[in-house]
Parts: sequence; C-alpha cells; structure tokens
Amino acid sequence: MPNRDTISRKHKLGQPPGALLYTGAPRTEKATFSLTSYNDKSHSEHIYSNFASCFEKTIPGFTHWINIEGLHDTELVGSIGERFGIHPLTLEDVMNTQTRPKFEDYDGYLVVILKMIRFDRETRKVVIEQLVIILKDQIVITFQEKDGEDAFDHVRHRINVSKGRIRKSGADYLCYALMDAVVDYYFEALERIGDLVEELEEALIEEPKQEIMHRLHDLKRQMIMLRKSVWPLRELINNIERSENPQITDNTHLYLRDLKDHIVLVIDTVETYRDLLSGLMDLYLSSVSNRMNEVMKVLAIISTVFIPVTFLAGVYGMNFDIMPELHDPRAYYILWGVMILLMVLQISYFKKRKWF
Amino acid sequence: MPNRDTISRKHKLGQPPGALLYTGAPRTEKATFSLTSYNDKSHSEHIYSNFASCFEKTIPGFTHWINIEGLHDTELVGSIGERFGIHPLTLEDVMNTQTRPKFEDYDGYLVVILKMIRFDRETRKVVIEQLVIILKDQIVITFQEKDGEDAFDHVRHRINVSKGRIRKSGADYLCYALMDAVVDYYFEALERIGDLVEELEEALIEEPKQEIMHRLHDLKRQMIMLRKSVWPLRELINNIERSENPQITDNTHLYLRDLKDHIVLVIDTVETYRDLLSGLMDLYLSSVSNRMNEVMKVLAIISTVFIPVTFLAGVYGMNFDIMPELHDPRAYYILWGVMILLMVLQISYFKKRKWF
Amino acid sequence: MPNRDTISRKHKLGQPPGALLYTGAPRTEKATFSLTSYNDKSHSEHIYSNFASCFEKTIPGFTHWINIEGLHDTELVGSIGERFGIHPLTLEDVMNTQTRPKFEDYDGYLVVILKMIRFDRETRKVVIEQLVIILKDQIVITFQEKDGEDAFDHVRHRINVSKGRIRKSGADYLCYALMDAVVDYYFEALERIGDLVEELEEALIEEPKQEIMHRLHDLKRQMIMLRKSVWPLRELINNIERSENPQITDNTHLYLRDLKDHIVLVIDTVETYRDLLSGLMDLYLSSVSNRMNEVMKVLAIISTVFIPVTFLAGVYGMNFDIMPELHDPRAYYILWGVMILLMVLQISYFKKRKWF
Amino acid sequence: MPNRDTISRKHKLGQPPGALLYTGAPRTEKATFSLTSYNDKSHSEHIYSNFASCFEKTIPGFTHWINIEGLHDTELVGSIGERFGIHPLTLEDVMNTQTRPKFEDYDGYLVVILKMIRFDRETRKVVIEQLVIILKDQIVITFQEKDGEDAFDHVRHRINVSKGRIRKSGADYLCYALMDAVVDYYFEALERIGDLVEELEEALIEEPKQEIMHRLHDLKRQMIMLRKSVWPLRELINNIERSENPQITDNTHLYLRDLKDHIVLVIDTVETYRDLLSGLMDLYLSSVSNRMNEVMKVLAIISTVFIPVTFLAGVYGMNFDIMPELHDPRAYYILWGVMILLMVLQISYFKKRKWF
Amino acid sequence: MPNRDTISRKHKLGQPPGALLYTGAPRTEKATFSLTSYNDKSHSEHIYSNFASCFEKTIPGFTHWINIEGLHDTELVGSIGERFGIHPLTLEDVMNTQTRPKFEDYDGYLVVILKMIRFDRETRKVVIEQLVIILKDQIVITFQEKDGEDAFDHVRHRINVSKGRIRKSGADYLCYALMDAVVDYYFEALERIGDLVEELEEALIEEPKQEIMHRLHDLKRQMIMLRKSVWPLRELINNIERSENPQITDNTHLYLRDLKDHIVLVIDTVETYRDLLSGLMDLYLSSVSNRMNEVMKVLAIISTVFIPVTFLAGVYGMNFDIMPELHDPRAYYILWGVMILLMVLQISYFKKRKWF
Repeated sequence: MPNRDTISRKHKLGQPPGALLYTGAPRTEKATFSLTSYNDKSHSEHIYSNFASCFEKTIPGFTHWINIEGLHDTELVGSIGERFGIHPLTLEDVMNTQTRPKFEDYDGYLVVILKMIRFDRETRKVVIEQLVIILKDQIVITFQEKDGEDAFDHVRHRINVSKGRIRKSGADYLCYALMDAVVDYYFEALERIGDLVEELEEALIEEPKQEIMHRLHDLKRQMIMLRKSVWPLRELINNIERSENPQITDNTHLYLRDLKDHIVLVIDTVETYRDLLSGLMDLYLSSVSNRMNEVMKVLAIISTVFIPVTFLAGVYGMNFDIMPELHDPRAYYILWGVMILLMVLQISYFKKRKWF
Repeated sequence: MPNRDTISRKHKLGQPPGALLYTGAPRTEKATFSLTSYNDKSHSEHIYSNFASCFEKTIPGFTHWINIEGLHDTELVGSIGERFGIHPLTLEDVMNTQTRPKFEDYDGYLVVILKMIRFDRETRKVVIEQLVIILKDQIVITFQEKDGEDAFDHVRHRINVSKGRIRKSGADYLCYALMDAVVDYYFEALERIGDLVEELEEALIEEPKQEIMHRLHDLKRQMIMLRKSVWPLRELINNIERSENPQITDNTHLYLRDLKDHIVLVIDTVETYRDLLSGLMDLYLSSVSNRMNEVMKVLAIISTVFIPVTFLAGVYGMNFDIMPELHDPRAYYILWGVMILLMVLQISYFKKRKWF
Repeated sequence: MPNRDTISRKHKLGQPPGALLYTGAPRTEKATFSLTSYNDKSHSEHIYSNFASCFEKTIPGFTHWINIEGLHDTELVGSIGERFGIHPLTLEDVMNTQTRPKFEDYDGYLVVILKMIRFDRETRKVVIEQLVIILKDQIVITFQEKDGEDAFDHVRHRINVSKGRIRKSGADYLCYALMDAVVDYYFEALERIGDLVEELEEALIEEPKQEIMHRLHDLKRQMIMLRKSVWPLRELINNIERSENPQITDNTHLYLRDLKDHIVLVIDTVETYRDLLSGLMDLYLSSVSNRMNEVMKVLAIISTVFIPVTFLAGVYGMNFDIMPELHDPRAYYILWGVMILLMVLQISYFKKRKWF
Repeated sequence: MPNRDTISRKHKLGQPPGALLYTGAPRTEKATFSLTSYNDKSHSEHIYSNFASCFEKTIPGFTHWINIEGLHDTELVGSIGERFGIHPLTLEDVMNTQTRPKFEDYDGYLVVILKMIRFDRETRKVVIEQLVIILKDQIVITFQEKDGEDAFDHVRHRINVSKGRIRKSGADYLCYALMDAVVDYYFEALERIGDLVEELEEALIEEPKQEIMHRLHDLKRQMIMLRKSVWPLRELINNIERSENPQITDNTHLYLRDLKDHIVLVIDTVETYRDLLSGLMDLYLSSVSNRMNEVMKVLAIISTVFIPVTFLAGVYGMNFDIMPELHDPRAYYILWGVMILLMVLQISYFKKRKWF
Repeated sequence: MPNRDTISRKHKLGQPPGALLYTGAPRTEKATFSLTSYNDKSHSEHIYSNFASCFEKTIPGFTHWINIEGLHDTELVGSIGERFGIHPLTLEDVMNTQTRPKFEDYDGYLVVILKMIRFDRETRKVVIEQLVIILKDQIVITFQEKDGEDAFDHVRHRINVSKGRIRKSGADYLCYALMDAVVDYYFEALERIGDLVEELEEALIEEPKQEIMHRLHDLKRQMIMLRKSVWPLRELINNIERSENPQITDNTHLYLRDLKDHIVLVIDTVETYRDLLSGLMDLYLSSVSNRMNEVMKVLAIISTVFIPVTFLAGVYGMNFDIMPELHDPRAYYILWGVMILLMVLQISYFKKRKWF
C-alpha cells in the first residue's frame, strides 16, 4: 500500500489543535529511551525503559542527548512535553508521522522535523521515517518512529571514541551532526536507486518488456515520495540559517552551510533521477512501438507477397467447364513465371522503400 | 455537470460592483441561524429561523459565533451586512459561491473566504462548498452554502465540553479553530482520493481497461478542481500572518503558523497525487500499447507461418492439364516436407528475434 | 485566419516611434463619439459624429466620459491627442490594436489598455478587441475598436438610473466601473467555453471521433489567445495599486482590490480549462488507441482461428495422384474433428489471455 | 547546418580574455564605414572605406553615428577600440558573433548587444545577425555583421527628412531609435512565421503528411533559436532602465519603457507560437493515429468478413472420396445461404460496435 | 556505468563532517605538483613529486600558482590543508569529487569548486572532472582529479610568454583566468555535442532507426549530467560578484562580469540542446508511427483487394455435384469481369480516401 505513505492514516478529525494522536503504523512494543551525556572530558550512555528514571540522570555542565524510539504512547509523549515545557503543537507534530519537514523557533527551544530515508534491500523500496530533533539549552531530544538500521549509531560512536570535534562542541553541533548523519543516508539511498536505474536501463536496451515499465513506474513513484521528503529541506536549512537564535554558534553555522550544500546536491540528484526515469520511459515506449513496427513489417511483407499469387492459384483451381488456359500445355509454367515475377516485383518494391 | 464548478452559473453581467446575487445551486429552504456564545465560565447555544431575534441575544463580554446556513436570501444577507457594517463588496463575495479563497482586512473587520471540501462516498466525488468567516470584535459570523455533514460540529462540541483551549481564548482563536477544522476535512478527502488512486493502480496492473482510463481522467479532473480551491490558501495564510491587525493575538499567530504547515502539506499532497495520476496514465498507455504488440505478434506469427504453405497447397489444387508434379508418386510427401520445413524455419526465425 | 490575431497585421516598419498607424481590421464607417456627463445631481448623454462639437460640451464640476468607437481615422486620433495633451506613444498604442494590456502613469494622465473579450455564439469563437481608457482629471476617454454588443451599456444604464455608487463617485470610479464591466464579460466568455468543454467531454466519452480532436485543438488555441490577453492583467492591476497617483482615491483602491481578485480568478479559470483540455486530449488519444486495440483483437482472433484450418482444407483440395488420406472413408470426418479442435484450442488460448 | 547557429564556430580556446577573434561566417569583402552627423539644423552623411578618414570628419556639437559593416578585420576593430577607449572585453564581444544580448555600463561608454532578426523569404528561415551599439558622449558606433536588407535605412531616412523627433534629440535617442528599428523587424519576422504556422495548420487539417511534421519540427527549431535571441532582451532593457547613467535622458527613458512593452510582446508572441506549434504536433500525431485506425478498421472488416467463408469454400473444394454434402442437390444453395448469413452477422456486429 | 556519475561511489557514511575520503575513480599513480611563480618582470615553473619541497620555493612579492594533480592521497591533502590553514570542510570538498559547484568565502581564503568538462572524441561522451581553486593572499592552489588534456596549458603558456594582462595582474586575476579557461572548454564540448545533434538529425530524416533513439537517449542523459554541472555556476558567479572580499580587485570584477555572460550563454545553450533533443525525439516517434502507417496501408490495400476475389475463386473451386454456374460457357469470363470490377472499385475507394 505504498500510496498510503503520502497521507496520514488516521487523521485527527474533530480533535482540537495540539491534541496528541499517533498516526504511524500500529505498534505494541514499549518505547525505549537512551541518554548520552558528554563533555570534552568524559561521557556516559544509558538505556532506560522508563522516562522518569532517564531524566534523573541529566548532569549540569554536560551536553545531554535523549533519544526516544517509539512514538505510539500518547501519555509518555505528553509527560515529556510537560517536563521540558514543549508546546502542544510541537508534540502534535512529534506524534503525527506525516508532518512536513520544517524548522521552528519556539520560545525556549528549537525544533527540527525531517525524514529519515533508508533503502530496504529486500523489498527494494525506500522506507521513510520521521525524526524530530528538539534543542533546548544543552539538551537534545530526538524522537524516532521505530528502531532499526540506525543512522545515529555513527554519531554515538563518534561521541564514544571522541572522533572529530563532536565532544568539544555543544548541543547545537550535536543537532547538526544528527542532521548530517541523516542526510548521509540520503546519499546511500540515492546510490541504491542509481543502481536500480542503471540495471533497468541495461535490461531495457536488451529487451523491452512490460515488466520493466512496471519497475520504472514503481521507481518513479518512489522518487515522487522522496521528493516530497527532500524538497522542504532547502527551506528548512534556510530558516535555520536566517534564525538568529543564540543557541546556534557561528561555528555551527559554518557546518550548516556545508549541510545545505549536501541537501541541494540531494535535491539535484533526485531531480536528475526523475529526468533519467522519464528518459527511460520514453525509450521504453519508443522501443515498444519500434518492435511493433518490425512485427508489422514482417506480417505485411509475407502477406502482400503471397496474397496475390494465392489468388491466382485459386483462380486456376476453379472447376468451370470452359477455362481455356487450363488446356494450354505451357500455361502451368507461364503461371509460375507470372507468380514469381509478381513476388520479385513486390519484394524489390519493399526493398526500395527500405522495409528491410 | 462537473465542469460547471469552475465558473459561476449566473454571473452578474451588468450589475454594479457590490450588487448581491446568489450564484450557488438553487435552493428553496429557509436559511437557518445558530448563535453560540461562550466565555471560559459558561456557554449557550440557540438556533433561530429569524435573524433579528438571533441578534438580540448577543451578550457583552462573551465570544459570539453566528453561523448562517443558506445564502440564497439576498435580502437577509443585505440586512446582516447593514447590521454589522459589512462592506457591499464583502457581501457580494459572500453570495457569489465562486469567490477565490482570500483574506481581507477591511476597516473594522476581517474576512476569510475558503472552500469546504468533502468527499461524497456515494458519487465518489469531491464536493466543494464555500465558507465565509467574518471576524468583528468578539463576534465571528460564518456563512455556509448549505447544511450537511458538518466540519463545525467538532468545534461546537469542543466549546460545549470545554475541550482544548477554545473556551479560554477569544474570537480570533475561534476563527482559527474553524479554519483548522476545515483543513482537517481536506486531509480526510485526500485520504479517500488516495484510496481511489491505489484501487485504480491495482486494477490497472491486473488488466488495463478503458474504463480505468475514464476513472483516471475523472480523478485528474477532481484534482484540478481541488488544486484551484487549495492553491490560494498559501497566499491567504501568508496574508493573515503579515497582517498586523490587533484582533489576532500572538498566541493565535503561533497556531496559524501550524495551520500554514498543514496547508502546505495539503498542497504538496495534491501535487503528489497529480504526479501519481500522470504516472498511472503513462502506465496505462504503455500497457495498452504492449497489449497491442502482443496481439499483433500472435497475428503475425500465425499468418506468416501459414500464408506461404497455403499458397503452395493452392498451386497444387490447380486444374491445369499438364502439371507434372501431380503425377509423381512421392510429390505429395515431398510437398508436406517442404511445407513443414518452411514453417519450422519461420518459427525459428521468430524465436531468434525474441517474438515469443 | 485565427492565428493572425497574435500579431499585428500591418506593422509600422520604418515609422518613427509614436507614428500613428491603425493596425486593426479595415473599416470604412465614420467613427462615432458619445459624451456622458454626470454628477450626483444630474446627468446628460449625447452622441456626436464630429469631435470638435463633442468637446465643446464638457462642463466644469461634472465627470465626463467620452467614448470613441472606431480607430481607423489617424487624423482624428491625432487631433484628440493634441487637444488633451496625450503623448504620441500613447496615441500609437491606441491605434495599434495589438498592444499588450498595460497601465501607464504619464505626466498628467493615466492610461489603461486592455482587451474586451466576447464569445460569438455563431462562430463559437472568442472575439478579442482592444479598449484604451485614458483618465485625465475629471475626464475619462475610452477608445473602442468597433461598436457591437456593448459591455459599456450596463455602465451607462447605471449612470442614467443612478444605480450603485457611480453617480456619487468621480472619474477614477468610472474608470474602475468600466474595467469591472469588461472583466465581467470575461466570465461570460469563460462560461460559454466551459459549456463547450463539457459538450466535448460528453461527445468524447460517447464516441471518440477525429472531429472532436479538431474541436479540442481549436478550443486550446483559443485558450492560448485568451491567456495572452488575460495574463498581463495581473501585472496591470498591481501597477495601478502600487501607483501613488492622487487621481485614484482610497475608496476606489478598495474596489480595485476586488477587481484584482476577479482577474486572478479569470486567470485561474483559464489555466484550469487548459488543464481540462489537455486531459481531454489524453483521454481522446487513449480512446483511439484503445479502439485500435479492439479492432486488432477481432482481426487477430478471426484470422488466426481460420488461417490454419483454411490451410488444411487447401491441402486436401490438391490434385496429386497419390494422396492416401483422400480415399479413407473416415478421413473427411476426422479432418473436421481436427479442424474444430484446432479452432477451440486457439479460442481458449485467447480467452485465457483475456483477449475477449 | 542550422544547429551551428547555437554555438560559436571557432572558439577562442587558449586565447586570453579580450583577445579579438572573429567567429562569424568567413568574409572577404572589405569593411565599410558610414558616418552620419546631424543636429536639429543640418545633417550630412558619408561613406568611407578607411576608418582614419571617417574619424577626421566628426564635428563638435553634432550627434555622430558611425556604422561599421563587416567585422572580420581584427586589426580594424582593434584600432577603433583604441581610438575611442573601448575595453578589450567589449571588442571581444563585438567580434564574437555568438555573444548573448546584453547591456553594459562601462566607464565612459555604454554597450548594447542584440540580435537582428530577418526572415529570408527564399529559404523560409529566420536569419540572425549580431548588432553592437556603443554610445559614447555624442557618438553612436554600430557594428553590423554584414550588409543586406537594412533595418537602419528607415532610421537614416528619418534623419535625412527630419521625420519624428530624431533630429531634435541626442545620441541616446538615436540609440533607442536603432533598437526600436531592430525590434520592429522582430514583428515582421514573427508575422512571416505566423503565416507559416497558419499554412501548416491548413495543410495538416486537409491531409496529415510526414512532410508537415518535418516542417513543424523545422519551425519549432527556429522558435528555439529565436527565443534564445529574444529572451535576454527583457533583462537587457530592465538593466538600461535601472542604470542611472546620465547619458540617457528622462525623455528617452519614456521611449525605452515603450520599447520594453514591445519586447515583452515579442516574447509573448514567441511563446504563443511555441504553444501553437506544440498543439499542431499533437494534432498531427492524433491525425496519424486516427488514420491508422481507419486503415486497420477497413482491413479488419474485409478480412474478418471473408476469411471464414473462404474457409468454407476451401472445405468443399477438398477431394475426399466420401463427402456426403457434395452430392446433396440443395447443398450448394444452402452453403451460399450460410455464407451470406455469416457475412451479414459479422457486418451487423461491426455496425453495432460503431466501426463504420 | 554512466549513471554513477550522478552520485558519489563510496560515501562517507558514518564519517564525521570534514573527514577526508577520496570518492573519485581509484588511482595508483603518485600525485604531482607544479609551482608557477611570476610577477610582471620574471617567472619560473617547477614540477615536484613532493609537497614539502614544492612549498619551500614560494617567494614573497610574486604570484604563486600551485597545481596539484591527483587527489587520492588523503594524507597529502591533509598536510596541504594544515600548511595553508584550510578548513576541514573545504578539504572534504576537495576530496569528494561529487561536490556541487560553489563559491565559498572562508575566513582567510576563498574557494571555487567547479567541474571541468571535456568531450572524449573516442567514446563520444562528455567527461566531467572536479577542479578546486583556492585563493589565499597571493597564492592560488588548484586541485585537479587527474592529469590529461589540460585546459590550464593555455594559461601557463600565457604566463610564460606574458600574453594578455596576466603577468601584470595578481592572484585574483589568475583565479579568473583559470575559470575562464575551464568555461572555454565548455564551449568546445558543447560544439562537439552540437555536431552530434546535427548528425543525428540528418540520420533521422534519412531513415528513422531505433539505434538513433538510443543515441538520442544517450545524448539526452549527457545533457542532464552537463546541466547538473553547469546550472550551479550562475549562482557561483553571483556569489563571487556579491562577495565584498578585498582580495578581488575592481578590475577583476569587470572580467568576472564577462565570465558570467559566458556562463549564462553555456546554460542557455545546454537548455537549447535539451529542447532540440526533445524535438528530435518527437520527430523520431512521429516518423516511426508514420512508417507503421505506411506499412499498414500497403498491407490493408493488398489484403482487402485480393481477399474477396480469392473467396470467389474458392467458391468456384468447390466440388458440389450441382453448381449450375460451372456449366455456363460464359461464366468463367463473367467471373473475371466481376472480380476485376471488385478490385477496381476497392482501389478507387482507397484512392478517394487518399490512402495512396
């Protein structure tokens, strides 16, 4: 049911704005919490299954990253919102997995909503999940739809081994690092799609089958979905850049400028693939019509060469009492001559018109 | 007559600007009025069939919401306009059901005109109706084309049970809440259309029939209409945001920003569906031409295999006196051999060209 | 010769800028003048065939509207220009019936150039004519290409019976009222075109004939022309709004804002019709190719079912001396059995492939 | 070799910027110079074949127009540049006939580069040539690629007979007058193209031949080229308008505004023709497929009507010893009946399906 | 594997931002360095295979150009970055051969990243390579992916022979000169592509083969790639122009304005080629369908002319005992007459419908 990705499944008809309603795929597992705390000297990492205990651990002077996986627990999200003073509208966006990517500067905190894109090698389909990043003072809270192949593991690893500048920088850099990790996965997914496009192109040139058209259509639909997730990112990053919020340092702005270049490259690549897919569809259609042309030519040549001579044979198979030609001893041979001549004339006519 | 939705039925040719002329579907029922009054402590709700009595009831210190269903009574609309000091141009827009969605800041009141969209499950068509919201001090007046499945019932319910922040907020929030309720119905309608798109895609992959093309065309036309209703909303909400009218509080602006995100998502989704529908049309056309290809191949193979041998059979059915082959005892068997050889050669040629 | 509408017929090659050259259809009738003078107390209306006498009648303190029909008299237009101090470039635009719609703020007067659009019910074509409105103090001068079904009669009537606010307002409101009357006719024309689109859609669904394609093409061409006339109006009205000319009062600006909404709706509707027409063309093409598919299937089924059995009949119609089967008493019946079996097999194959 | 127009023939690979390299069609004739000098009292005109002598003649207090035809002489262009203090980059643009239309405000002089467009009635093709206009104090220098049907003759004539305001205005007005003359030729060319479009439309409706498609393609390609020449003019004229160079007087700005309207009209018309051509291509393709449909229907009807009865005839032409029907005296007549019945049934089936 | 050009091969999944990872084609050769130093009096040029020794040679008062070919040595790029104080994000861009063309103004230096485009005459494909130019005080550092046909040789030659103004200008002019040399190669590549487009057009008009469609598709794909490289250049040059960095002198800005015109011309030309290629595809498809039409007409004419008469011949070849016509002495001649009449009627019908 891939189209369903385009629109929320259960919409909040009749709910007041800010009402919490989970709109993702149904889940039963319990949400999990991880708390990563670090400064340039030390770091710690804990996993909890209870929000209250998770929160007790935050230490002043450290950067804290609280990662929450699983959004289906309305009550839980509500209590997190209350604890950190998050506006109900933000919480509504957290739970509605169809929210459009955006950056918002609320009084006291910043929110970034974007889509994590992963290419599932088995179904050969792009999987889109929502990620919400909230930056409040030195605390970064991330909400993920579900747990799985994790773009964040790389960031966590860098914190652990103190690779790059992440341990030396504050929560705003962590925010950037998470967004950067998500965008890196976009390139990964696009590369896989690039492989599929190439594969289809080769298959198409070898033999144009209807199945290829179906796969082209499928890819095109995925590009439409991807585009919907990726297109708003340009505006998102522009809004961050223009925001004069003091929480984002000048140094992080430099990195955000770099991220913007990556996002623009992602958008360019999505557009390029759309163009390539359109080109392949045109190629497919022209191949089909070319193929038909060839079939028709063979049919036309064979039919038109034999139909007139078959008629002649039919005529001399008639049983009229009086058919003088039948009694002429040379008639049979003359007829063969006429028939062969006819066939040769037709073939040379087709040859002249470059039919073969 | 679906196209007629795109343009007014009876236009006001020769009428002065501001002349009142009802352009919706003809109606005979009497217009109905409901008056909802509330503050954070109490609320009341009354239904009237007479405008004058409706108005007597407005109490200072409360937020009043006057909902008017049925716009066909020119005189009535005129007297409402006079009572509240509404400009004739606004009243003209109220009655002309083809007005483009817009926000206008008149001296003394604000007007929002938008389209209510409902998906009729029986006709499987989108129904578009006009809604005019006028905000004047603590009074909100809404004009609806007709009564039916009502997006406003949810808002009314929230007022009654004091759900969310509606009872604590003023008339500007009520305005927002009504717009939000209308936009929620857009998602509902889009979800239904998404179901239809999906249904058509499945039917199309199973068997491409012309009926599917007709349904695709029908959906596409509905998307064109939807787009016309939805596209101006972006500008509308931008105009509200930019308006510095003191009637709209800062808090409501926050909610309007959220509404804007929803509107942009609606627009994105409409565009996505247009893209998906175009993709399905391409798929349909390629399926049809593929199907034709297959039919032609079968025809070509059978025809070209049998036409030459039928000619040979015709030749030896001729009645010439002198046809030496006829008298050769092995001739019949040799001919069968030649004919079978011919057929095998042709079939292997087609096989080589990957015709089957 | 409908394309000719897109470009001037006789262009002023080699003429200096500001040279007067009439480019409309050739005319021989004399130009006519009407002078309407009014204030809120009284009004008068006169028709002249001589410009000088027309001008004598203008009375101070009144709003004057001079309407001139027929532009082919170069000398006349020149003398009007001289009398009112109109710049030669404006006069050139007055006479060149191909001028693009625009608003210009000259020193001492304002010019609005737009296209009057009328749907001719006989030829079923849109007729486009140029209208120039010049506003100079309390005088409005209008130049029309020719006389006919007149959008201005309604305005004249309103002046006569003092309907609406026209008699109470000045020359700037008259200007607006004229533009509004012209735009009302756009809706009228669009409604007629909407009828044609609908008619074509119904005819198309019933039976796709080539004639429908020609009519679709014709409508599409008319939409291209309409669009060229209508598209610049948005810029025109924006320019008026931005112009800070004191001749246009605040009150009239309110009406112009309303007019702008109408213009945007006209543009939207033209675009909607273009989309609908494209949709109908796609539908037509798919219907044609579907139809072909059906024809080919019937041909393929009948041909492939009968060609092999006809071959068999041909074989046993041969006259070889030695054909043992011919002498077997059951052979004829066996052959019928084989032939029927062959036909049944083929038909069930086609049935399985859903050919019918 | 029409595509070659889109790109320079010999590009200056490895040349320093500002290097002079002629890129137009090869020429051997000597360049010619004409010097026109005028003020409102007198004027003179001379033709030289030597640049030095041409320059001696410039008289203070007069407006001078030096027109140079033929750009292939690198040395000559270099010496002109030196004499008037022209920047090497400008000279490079003068000689490179592929320069994009632009306006540049250099220190001490202004440059306008645009394309002269002429419709060659013999080849029925648009001919594009480059024109460079340099305005330096009271001197206007124009560089033309070659001499031929001359848009400038009209301007020269107006100077000679003192028609219009040219003699009363300065060098900036001359500049404008030259650009206006060039743009007037655009309308001329567009009118010719409009004739061709119309001609093709009529031919297409009468009979859709492949030759029409070739001509449509050819016209479309010319529109692509035209567009490339015309599109940058809007920016060019905007740049002149925005330039606050004192050499351009207020009065000339009024004329430039008028020129801008003309340019926008040219661009609109080019776009309109592109739309019309696309429409004609769609019409052509639908006609071809309709034609095919008709051919296939005739083939299908004749084939399917006769194939089954031919089979029956073949059956009773067989030579089996035992074929009881052959000996029934009514059999021949019954068979005719059956065959006619079959044919009638098929024809009525086709009739019912509206095949004819 | 041409699609792979659109996206990086090995992306830096899990690497921190600023991590150096070479993403181009694998290489084994050692990187080479060349140092060109010059002022208006003298110049020197050296080639090194060791970066440290290369750097020792830089002399104060001279303009230095360090050209580095081969980017696969991560360590080397890192040490260059350290030596010149280049930000890690810049170094990441240097090594990632998929970086989008851009200009960046870092604290202390400027970076320009663009694509070098070369047309490989053997593979008939466009080869795209990355070039990074860093401008820091009087030092220009260029990073090239690999060594080959070198756009820079021309610049080097100009330095050596002191051609043009390069020796008299500073490092900013050198920067410009390098970009100009790169853009000149774009024209070269576009000219080659123009040749191919023309070649295809001629081949297409002569005979529409499927192979042409494949080549058109291939060219179109190359245009998509080219466009992706060329499109961002407009923004790049605008950013340089708007940058108020004192390193870029006013004089160089004049040259950059000229370069901008070239870039816009390149973009225009790429778009023009895309349009031309689309036009050729339409022409190809119409030719194919026209060809099919012709084939079908020949088939239809021959079939429909002979099928009915073959039926008649079949009828009189039947062996019924009683077939009175067979014994009429004129019957055979009458039948011939009927058959010829039938054929003539059909042919004249087809003639009337303009089938041939």
